[in-house]
Amino acid sequence: MSEPVRVDLARLRYFVASAFEAVGMPAADARIVGTLMAEADLQGSDGHGVIRLPQYVKRIRAGGVNLQPNIQVIRERAGMALIHGDNAMGHLVMKRAAELAIEKARDAGVAWVGAQWSNHAGPASLYAKMPLAHDMIGLYFAVGNANHLPPWGGLDMLLSTNPIAAAIPAGEEPPIVLDMATTVAAYGKVKAKAQRGELMPEGWMIDREGKPLTDPKRANEGVLLPIGGYKGYGLALVVGLIAGTLNRAAMGKDVIDFNADAASPTNTGQAIVAIDPSAFGDIGEFKKAVDTVIRDLHASERIPGVDRIRVPGERSHELAAQQRASGIAIAAALMQTLDRLAEELEIAPLRTN
Amino acid sequence: MSEPVRVDLARLRYFVASAFEAVGMPAADARIVGTLMAEADLQGSDGHGVIRLPQYVKRIRAGGVNLQPNIQVIRERAGMALIHGDNAMGHLVMKRAAELAIEKARDAGVAWVGAQWSNHAGPASLYAKMPLAHDMIGLYFAVGNANHLPPWGGLDMLLSTNPIAAAIPAGEEPPIVLDMATTVAAYGKVKAKAQRGELMPEGWMIDREGKPLTDPKRANEGVLLPIGGYKGYGLALVVGLIAGTLNRAAMGKDVIDFNADAASPTNTGQAIVAIDPSAFGDIGEFKKAVDTVIRDLHASERIPGVDRIRVPGERSHELAAQQRASGIAIAAALMQTLDRLAEELEIAPLRTN
Repeated sequence: MSEPVRVDLARLRYFVASAFEAVGMPAADARIVGTLMAEADLQGSDGHGVIRLPQYVKRIRAGGVNLQPNIQVIRERAGMALIHGDNAMGHLVMKRAAELAIEKARDAGVAWVGAQWSNHAGPASLYAKMPLAHDMIGLYFAVGNANHLPPWGGLDMLLSTNPIAAAIPAGEEPPIVLDMATTVAAYGKVKAKAQRGELMPEGWMIDREGKPLTDPKRANEGVLLPIGGYKGYGLALVVGLIAGTLNRAAMGKDVIDFNADAASPTNTGQAIVAIDPSAFGDIGEFKKAVDTVIRDLHASERIPGVDRIRVPGERSHELAAQQRASGIAIAAALMQTLDRLAEELEIAPLRTN
Repeated sequence: MSEPVRVDLARLRYFVASAFEAVGMPAADARIVGTLMAEADLQGSDGHGVIRLPQYVKRIRAGGVNLQPNIQVIRERAGMALIHGDNAMGHLVMKRAAELAIEKARDAGVAWVGAQWSNHAGPASLYAKMPLAHDMIGLYFAVGNANHLPPWGGLDMLLSTNPIAAAIPAGEEPPIVLDMATTVAAYGKVKAKAQRGELMPEGWMIDREGKPLTDPKRANEGVLLPIGGYKGYGLALVVGLIAGTLNRAAMGKDVIDFNADAASPTNTGQAIVAIDPSAFGDIGEFKKAVDTVIRDLHASERIPGVDRIRVPGERSHELAAQQRASGIAIAAALMQTLDRLAEELEIAPLRTN
């Protein structure tokens, strides 16, 4: 296998924006989506960054995304709002939702903003992290864009890997950023194992007899397993109800598999909560207390063989700093796909040589 | 082993209230705590019901709980409040918090109420369920009262089993009620295995070498495992920060082990969120949509050998109906303990014959 190619953050951003402009997205919107997608790759969420570009372009060309959306607030109270995404790119809808949640939390202390008629928006952590710049906590819940999870004991894939993300500001330490699917493995990880010709560990999937399935090439014969058994099933269900059903967005049987169907609006539901710790007390004290928790965890005695204790988000934080300096690693196979896309769209390629 | 004894709900409520009155709790407060504890046993949360009475009484006698508390709102905005529990019984603090969250959500649409200087409050689901009677969704987060969980890769028990609960109203179906610890097994389940002389399955605990620990009698040589590995660690940490640190309640090293120390105030932190679905759209439509999700899950094809698909809370809901009719099962050994307690407190025993 060839080495990954390193590209500059600004160049990646520009490339993605150019691709979207080439298929008719207004320049300002293309810049926003490009920035968020490049940010995803920068922090190592590479299953949700530029790798999705060909799929997004395909969906736009199939008429599955509205490029002239009227994203608007259709319900609002002091502590909440509901946004109609008008089938825009999810990145545009959820950036707007996060900004509104932050603005409302400044007054209300805590604000919950849901979205309906949104679309896939990339990694959950992107939006959970937005309140951090305002010294606020962010929580994010989303309905995934394809169902891979059955109810506990069942075989019909009625639920998605519905992710949960949370971002908590610290003082001198980097923030805590959790971003997790409610399944043991995200479906993207299964696909990656298949591509690399590796077996999956037991516990990721079961077949239709309930037996462990470890061959990722047989993934379509089985179902994903939730974390903690029935607990993860419960979490995925609750997240689906508060991010989907509550917002009148798709959930359960209504979920459109966006891998199989590029044209139908997905009516994706997401929700973001902004919490202003300064409403609860002094913000400096809060951030100091978070630092203390992080340092106590770091200093824990370790299981023999473990070299280091991390808090959630630490690895991404370090990777982002590293890739900001030395470029973002793009897998060789992905780069070839992007070369072809650039040719097809008649835009400058991402690759520089 | 002897058969469990069945007692009437009202009798259990009265017995618990009498016990608290006997150690000096004002009658009105004793009635509230008695009602909530009996409710816990009714729904099968028997690790958090009357089984805790001797421990609560011990703590009250040791001066570890304030029987004349001034529970008050110390911070308030449109979408949030922070309650100072004044070291009252947690049940009193969290009932107040839930009522306030419901009241505030009526105007704000969504309201978050945190508590500091609270105490153990019984099962998380009790409070998450309170908004249901008002056609609202309840979410509940709490810092557990003893640390049993280390950071991922670590051995120092710096985190508790920090539970998450959620309750979502349905139309014709019973509500969905999730109540889960962020560890594979709650510590109470480990103790129960030890009492019954059974081994634990692999995956509940590891020893200090990181190897599976299956003998519950050796529980103090090991640590609990989080659900989904590092994911459950992340969840337990985030719950601890938003239910503890955010409220200036104990978290991490500050957590008092209430099994080992009956006298020190625990400064327990909890949080409840009330969400009014009618702020997002028509409530009847919402509840119908939840019914549809529940019915689709029930109708899923099943793994061979599985007799039925359930949604979270279904078993508790059925058990509560059953025990309301035929009495609440109290284990024989527990009944003996309660007989001795009644004698000691000079109150009428729970047992009727």
